[in-house]
Amino acid sequence: MAKTIKPEKVGGFLDYLPPVMIARKKMLETIEKVYQKFGFVPLDTPAIERLDVLTGNDKSFRMNLYRALIVSGLEDLGEAAKNRNDDLALRFDLTVPLSRVVAAYPEIIKPFKRYQVGKVWRGEKAQAGRFREFVQFDADIIGSRSMLADTEIIQIMYEVMIALGVSSFLIRFNNRKIFEALNEVINLSDAQKRDELIRIIDKRDKVEKEEIEKELKRKPDNKWDPAPNLSTENVKKVIDFISITGSVDDIIEEANLVVGNVPIGQQGICELKEIVNNLRMVGMPSINWCLDLSVARGLGYYTGPVFETVLTDLPEIGSVYSGGRFDGLTDRFIPGSNIPGTGASVGVDRLFAAMEKLGKIKPVSSLTKVLIAMFDHSLLLDYLTIANELRREGIETELYLNKDSFRDQITYAAKKEIPLVVIIGSKEKEQGKVSLRDMRLRSQETIDKSCLISKIRDSFE
Amino acid sequence: MAKTIKPEKVGGFLDYLPPVMIARKKMLETIEKVYQKFGFVPLDTPAIERLDVLTGNDKSFRMNLYRALIVSGLEDLGEAAKNRNDDLALRFDLTVPLSRVVAAYPEIIKPFKRYQVGKVWRGEKAQAGRFREFVQFDADIIGSRSMLADTEIIQIMYEVMIALGVSSFLIRFNNRKIFEALNEVINLSDAQKRDELIRIIDKRDKVEKEEIEKELKRKPDNKWDPAPNLSTENVKKVIDFISITGSVDDIIEEANLVVGNVPIGQQGICELKEIVNNLRMVGMPSINWCLDLSVARGLGYYTGPVFETVLTDLPEIGSVYSGGRFDGLTDRFIPGSNIPGTGASVGVDRLFAAMEKLGKIKPVSSLTKVLIAMFDHSLLLDYLTIANELRREGIETELYLNKDSFRDQITYAAKKEIPLVVIIGSKEKEQGKVSLRDMRLRSQETIDKSCLISKIRDSFE
Repeated sequence: MAKTIKPEKVGGFLDYLPPVMIARKKMLETIEKVYQKFGFVPLDTPAIERLDVLTGNDKSFRMNLYRALIVSGLEDLGEAAKNRNDDLALRFDLTVPLSRVVAAYPEIIKPFKRYQVGKVWRGEKAQAGRFREFVQFDADIIGSRSMLADTEIIQIMYEVMIALGVSSFLIRFNNRKIFEALNEVINLSDAQKRDELIRIIDKRDKVEKEEIEKELKRKPDNKWDPAPNLSTENVKKVIDFISITGSVDDIIEEANLVVGNVPIGQQGICELKEIVNNLRMVGMPSINWCLDLSVARGLGYYTGPVFETVLTDLPEIGSVYSGGRFDGLTDRFIPGSNIPGTGASVGVDRLFAAMEKLGKIKPVSSLTKVLIAMFDHSLLLDYLTIANELRREGIETELYLNKDSFRDQITYAAKKEIPLVVIIGSKEKEQGKVSLRDMRLRSQETIDKSCLISKIRDSFE
Repeated sequence: MAKTIKPEKVGGFLDYLPPVMIARKKMLETIEKVYQKFGFVPLDTPAIERLDVLTGNDKSFRMNLYRALIVSGLEDLGEAAKNRNDDLALRFDLTVPLSRVVAAYPEIIKPFKRYQVGKVWRGEKAQAGRFREFVQFDADIIGSRSMLADTEIIQIMYEVMIALGVSSFLIRFNNRKIFEALNEVINLSDAQKRDELIRIIDKRDKVEKEEIEKELKRKPDNKWDPAPNLSTENVKKVIDFISITGSVDDIIEEANLVVGNVPIGQQGICELKEIVNNLRMVGMPSINWCLDLSVARGLGYYTGPVFETVLTDLPEIGSVYSGGRFDGLTDRFIPGSNIPGTGASVGVDRLFAAMEKLGKIKPVSSLTKVLIAMFDHSLLLDYLTIANELRREGIETELYLNKDSFRDQITYAAKKEIPLVVIIGSKEKEQGKVSLRDMRLRSQETIDKSCLISKIRDSFE
């Protein structure tokens, strides 16, 4: 006899039991509807990709991934690893697979507006609001360099949050080109150090200012260490710059004084101005968006506008909906192709957890509208027939399957919050009647069988 | 500069580009609606589970799984395998995770009717209609021993196929208890040999009868080899038994002659009779179901009725929708718990591929109803405003984002099969009008701006 096994899930992974999953599905459907309204179409790609596709064979790729390999039965993993042909891993986002698809299928018509929802996996330390498996829900526009595309992404982020019933949120945006210009101003030329600077600033909401300063100053431990090693003066320039506040127009003006003389900085500022103009044209409430020069976004591939969304009632959980422009992402597959792209991704699990905390998620025990009680087993034919009739009318109907007492059946309906119970005994059957119990009103009445469907319909109006 | 990377997906895995994905989503929604109509609720579980949860630590577990482990960046997999703490793998079905959930959350009210859709992974040889990653869409009832539950599963299978627009299909069912009884009749007592017999018979549609006979006769190569090693006489008994044909009642009668004296055989026959009676009561057309004593289903965990669905126009692809009763699946977690379960699973990718072959899938290029042409960039405010108005009315609307020629924009609408294009130039703007081009009718008219929404609505009636 085999040893008993613990029914444990893996740490950092989540089970969604039905009452929560019903609410979660509703959330996903709401997001999807917004994406569709903007003309986006769905795509699906495999969970597993080649390691080189995911990492670009970039030696500085440091994320922890779940690698995957085929192993027969209970065979030893180490042994199998020696003989493998393929280097495979679970995707860590949906953007890299999108770039593979765009490169692999040149026949796709552009601008290509696609959405994709799916699980992604990262071998990160599991902590509150951070999971090792989580669902992303992305919308991206491939093949447009227009700031209208970036504006549309911000519009979509706004519409999704509103559609989800969240009103206290702030979409903050910035432009990576401005960081590039800032790097020139402080004479930081090494690409890896620039990436590291982005990563340090991306933590600004989570750590003290002193910590940021210390990390920006830090000297490299060895020649591969990307520590920025900035002078005290340059650290101050960076901190002062990302701390600029004021009205949108003030921020643009002040930023212009620092980076406006660098060509790429000028370009970044023009792009920001265009987005701001567009947002004013579409009339997005100014309480829900702001220009913020400290918005960095950790991932390396952004090249222009970057966006993030914080819940103003729950800022500590970080951004729940982020993205940016990533021109040239297909270059790793087709050098020089320089296809433009921009988009954003809902962190579904984090947003869901936040909405639960904010009391905006209502667990739903059941979708069933009507339970048909198994009152008298000799009337099974009647029960089966009525169940079929109700289902044919689109009414979610359960037939009680077990031979439990009537009382247990009513308890089942109560626990599952099933609103109506149909009860037919031999007396009702003889008279062509049915009894209909309304669990919400704690009432019961006996009606003509022919009125059952209209009576059920009425009770949900 | 990094080497160019091929934008290749992994063999045996599928990309679903939007035109196909739209059709596929519709299929999934159709299945879901049927499950909901029968009172099922959704569940979601992680893609990755502990290896012992998936295999039950069963030494005879032979399936090829994708094992998963966290590796930092491009680090060597073999090295990482040496230092791992956890034995993890990608799930190979949704039933084992369900059994973990049922064992882990005893508070779940039973009968528990849950559906789950998700990807599963098997390291099988990729071939036509067989993928290494595929989507299953399961409905299971946990906590009922009644044959009404099994009947309901068969009813659901029927309703799903009908709802998908497939009419030429046959649901074949049988009972594992009858195989158990047959094993007693031929004196096959070893559990692994019994499993092997099931596996051999499960191949009956794919190989010649002689091959089946040869395999049933085969002598073990070594003491771990589960070859059944049946005598010629017993092979004949088995082959004759699984070849019994005729009316449902004839088959039951003939089966009774062979296994009716074995208690478990008698029980199996009673269960089959009850299901047959129930199916007649619900009036399921007899052309769509049959009792077939050769239905075995390969997986080890079935204990009672087993079901499978073949497309009568495409039998060679095998079953597209299968399942069965699996009482006691939580026993590996809670010995002796003996919780009953029954259910079925749509092989979504296989069924989809089959429906494509049968011409029952219509690819859809776009969900967009209206394209707003970027005719005159100085009218951007008007375009953005109209786009917002249409979207607020629930009309899927795209604004053309790039500064391409009007001709290119019309080509885009044509290629994407977007039915309507809204065109506003300075002349229309002055007069408070819009031009509406219907790409389907190749017609264009100029209308009052205030009539736009009702005109669009009309054009889809």
